Amino acid sequence: MSVSNIVSTMMAAPLSLNHFLERAGKLFPNSEIVSRLPNKSLRQHSFKQYYERTLQLSSALKALGLRKGDRVATLCWNHHAHLEAYFGIPAAGGVMHTLNLRLAPEEIGWIASNADDRFLIVDDVLLPLLEKVLPFLNKGHQFEKIIVFRFSDASPTTANVAAGYLDYDHLLASAPAFDGYAPHDENDPVAMCYTSGTTGRPKGVVYSHRSTVLHSLVGCMPDAWKLSGSDTVLPVTPMFHANSWGLPYACIMLGTKLVFPGPHLHAHDLLDLMALQPPTMAVGVPTIWLTLIQALEAEPNRWTLPIGMRSLVGGSATPESLIRAFAKRGVELSQGWGMTETSPLATVFYKKHELRGLDDEAWFKRKTLAGLPVPLMELRIVGESGEVAPWDGVAVGEVQVRGPFVTGDYHNVTRDEEKFTADGWLRTGDVAAIDSYGYLRIADRTKDLIKSGGEWISSVDLENAIMGHPEVAEAAVIALLHDKWGERPLACVVLKPSSKTLSTTLTPEMLVSLTALLKTQFLSWQLPEAFVVVDAIPRTSTGKFWKAKLREMFPDWP
Amino acid sequence: MSVSNIVSTMMAAPLSLNHFLERAGKLFPNSEIVSRLPNKSLRQHSFKQYYERTLQLSSALKALGLRKGDRVATLCWNHHAHLEAYFGIPAAGGVMHTLNLRLAPEEIGWIASNADDRFLIVDDVLLPLLEKVLPFLNKGHQFEKIIVFRFSDASPTTANVAAGYLDYDHLLASAPAFDGYAPHDENDPVAMCYTSGTTGRPKGVVYSHRSTVLHSLVGCMPDAWKLSGSDTVLPVTPMFHANSWGLPYACIMLGTKLVFPGPHLHAHDLLDLMALQPPTMAVGVPTIWLTLIQALEAEPNRWTLPIGMRSLVGGSATPESLIRAFAKRGVELSQGWGMTETSPLATVFYKKHELRGLDDEAWFKRKTLAGLPVPLMELRIVGESGEVAPWDGVAVGEVQVRGPFVTGDYHNVTRDEEKFTADGWLRTGDVAAIDSYGYLRIADRTKDLIKSGGEWISSVDLENAIMGHPEVAEAAVIALLHDKWGERPLACVVLKPSSKTLSTTLTPEMLVSLTALLKTQFLSWQLPEAFVVVDAIPRTSTGKFWKAKLREMFPDWP
Repeated sequence: MSVSNIVSTMMAAPLSLNHFLERAGKLFPNSEIVSRLPNKSLRQHSFKQYYERTLQLSSALKALGLRKGDRVATLCWNHHAHLEAYFGIPAAGGVMHTLNLRLAPEEIGWIASNADDRFLIVDDVLLPLLEKVLPFLNKGHQFEKIIVFRFSDASPTTANVAAGYLDYDHLLASAPAFDGYAPHDENDPVAMCYTSGTTGRPKGVVYSHRSTVLHSLVGCMPDAWKLSGSDTVLPVTPMFHANSWGLPYACIMLGTKLVFPGPHLHAHDLLDLMALQPPTMAVGVPTIWLTLIQALEAEPNRWTLPIGMRSLVGGSATPESLIRAFAKRGVELSQGWGMTETSPLATVFYKKHELRGLDDEAWFKRKTLAGLPVPLMELRIVGESGEVAPWDGVAVGEVQVRGPFVTGDYHNVTRDEEKFTADGWLRTGDVAAIDSYGYLRIADRTKDLIKSGGEWISSVDLENAIMGHPEVAEAAVIALLHDKWGERPLACVVLKPSSKTLSTTLTPEMLVSLTALLKTQFLSWQLPEAFVVVDAIPRTSTGKFWKAKLREMFPDWP
Repeated sequence: MSVSNIVSTMMAAPLSLNHFLERAGKLFPNSEIVSRLPNKSLRQHSFKQYYERTLQLSSALKALGLRKGDRVATLCWNHHAHLEAYFGIPAAGGVMHTLNLRLAPEEIGWIASNADDRFLIVDDVLLPLLEKVLPFLNKGHQFEKIIVFRFSDASPTTANVAAGYLDYDHLLASAPAFDGYAPHDENDPVAMCYTSGTTGRPKGVVYSHRSTVLHSLVGCMPDAWKLSGSDTVLPVTPMFHANSWGLPYACIMLGTKLVFPGPHLHAHDLLDLMALQPPTMAVGVPTIWLTLIQALEAEPNRWTLPIGMRSLVGGSATPESLIRAFAKRGVELSQGWGMTETSPLATVFYKKHELRGLDDEAWFKRKTLAGLPVPLMELRIVGESGEVAPWDGVAVGEVQVRGPFVTGDYHNVTRDEEKFTADGWLRTGDVAAIDSYGYLRIADRTKDLIKSGGEWISSVDLENAIMGHPEVAEAAVIALLHDKWGERPLACVVLKPSSKTLSTTLTPEMLVSLTALLKTQFLSWQLPEAFVVVDAIPRTSTGKFWKAKLREMFPDWP
């Protein structure tokens, strides 16, 4: 595009994940990776071992006939071998496709077929799930090679051997010598992940070397994850969910110690693991973090959170009460906002210098916001009539984003014009306001907004307020059809074990106290039409509140 | 390059400096820029004002006829208007070319001609220099427009008006409305800078949107500058020298407060400025930092360094004594290594987690190392016979680098094949070893190594050791020809004001004490052949020791 007889003299060096892997092996051989096995013991690898094993995986895949661009699916928990797949598959020129093990077998089968996965790496403990998935692969589609990672340390079973399944560690041990990285340019794909797809079929997002490298650099910045080689990261977020928010890539780049929880995501297990291998940073969804607080409250003398730990949460709204509960225990909880389509980090909360005068109380309120857009992420909110909304903290609109690690399409589907604007922005489906300081406040998913008498009510705001009540453990608010108002909010509440209930309804005292609390923040017409007590809020595969399921449970007023 | 029917779905969004500028205006309007004027008063701008002025500059340049790719030279100190040029020129599609005001007029003239600079922005206080430069422009070349920034706040002179010089602020005030950024792709050039050229003609390096954005992201990481929006940066490094190490770009991206020293780089002025506008981070060359310590020692009660300030130094070797002197005053001094050709950050010192057990003494020794390669920077050392040297801390070789913000060529010259290897690495001309932890130790510039009796002696190591003596302020070591040994080191020493001298020679006591100190670190044959006392070490335009000049002063043994 240049005229006037000048061009940049900079090298045309492509961005590449292989460069991160080389850093891990050469600069950080003594860094550590800890994986929790199914029997709860810990297995430790150095980055040097990791590097060598990852190159072996790459060689082994090529020896198995992997071609450039071929998809290699993973059906794995968070552990070192999954991390080997993160880099070993792209090193061989393949595309890692993380299958979400929490989905229904038919859905996993559909996704693997849509992605055209050729090989599969699967945890031995997930073979029973795989058996259920295989019948749902599209006719004519099969995994050509199934490679079993003996996560449980058990010997290969006769049945697996008979089925022709390959053994992951045998494959690595017998791999030919590494003969170099597959040639690539920076836009070549490295990984794919399907959206959770609460409506319609899941859709595949395909990340490139470029997008992954850029996302890693942006994520590490002091005003985002603040990640350094001195950190120890505990990624509770599954590696099959938006690549565990991209943290594994960044840790490999920087030599950061990783502690993988394996399949043990129960609060007790996570607290035990934090005691054994104290992280400086732990990441997960707020709903799992809620269970940590419940466990700490239930047994106050059993655990403490690691000193100096910080935590990033995301994936759903974070109640102020949760932020306060962690702060009380010395852990700063910040939230990010994003989605599979945004790699996923789009905004992150941090304290702007110009607001340094705010007191703690004001910060607790502010910390419920989703934060500020990270570098390289363009963000705007667009109102119902298509106009870009002002940043006044009041005007709400759909969040739209654009940038080099935002998807501009989906894999192997007819282009969904509804998802993108004419000028090239992704329509996220989330509704938000932006205040004058640039902080994003997510009001709701478009489909979760409640339209009552022509006015919108934010289910998220109600949930967060209800969860601020000392006797409430969790709460989710959904819209039910209403003859007079169109829709009215129903609040589904999980009480703390210590609280009294009257089966599925609140005690009169509790109803009074909760209503009084809500009235300090909401107008009368915005209050829930009714409250029901439930044992648990159903959760999606990624641990978020699953409102579609709640709506199935309460099709009519209870 | 992809086969197997898959492409990345990521948006093709170009990396762009304009995005940083938009962030400054939209996300960080209340951040501040402070500039010190020639009369030493301070002028303050908000980022909002900065943003508006920069767009005005862009519009004004287009109205003056700027075409895509046209070079706009700057002959300016560090101040807000220079920062406006950093973004305003690329916004209009132009290329900012920073002229080094410390060079000889004939050299500046040659450089401006080689770059084919079309417009010039010049500080009013530098007009006398410009008058000396103009006669040295190549025949037929002239600056079509000369825009004078009234840095001194004086009115435009009649002479300037008569000469047709434009006034910077008038130009901005009368600029047409901003009608959008010039279309570009990410490899289009944004800035150029000429190497200091201690040998041969200076050579032009041309940075792109892409290289500048990537360098900014990498620089901000916690293991590099650790830059956040809450920092206050004092860039003493000139904006005409490798873009003040790229910090202005990063500060605009993050909303970081900038304090510009203007023309006042004397130690007293810098210490006064630090007291008035305390930075959290100050960057400069070690030789200027030496003068700060000398001033603090000379008047112990006049200044203190800002609490919590950190400092990055680079551009020449950093003596351990300097690191200790700052540490004593509460300031952590770290060094980076790089050059105009590397944007410039190539390596940076930080404490690797695996070395956390080292005691303070060990860290002071280690902090004289140049650090670890930053992400995206590939680095190797290559021995005399062309083999890649091992990372054992002993083997030395030439440092070679490769990456997306490393130059692969120079502007408007016949390609210098000597500067690049056949496999595409830049030959830096620096000689170094890398230890097993990956830390780079710069032994010398190739041309500054001393070859004595067939063995190499590092002038840098000797200098750093000599500067560790309590009576030495500064020292530079050069090679002089020697009948028997080929070359032998001559040490040129500047003593502290309190020290006794015998004109140009050391006192016998001092000679004994200095030799004893050196013998703890060097073998006898590595010691300087002679010591001379000088009033000052000559400095290059960028403040580094100018050894070529010293060699002119001492062509033979003194």
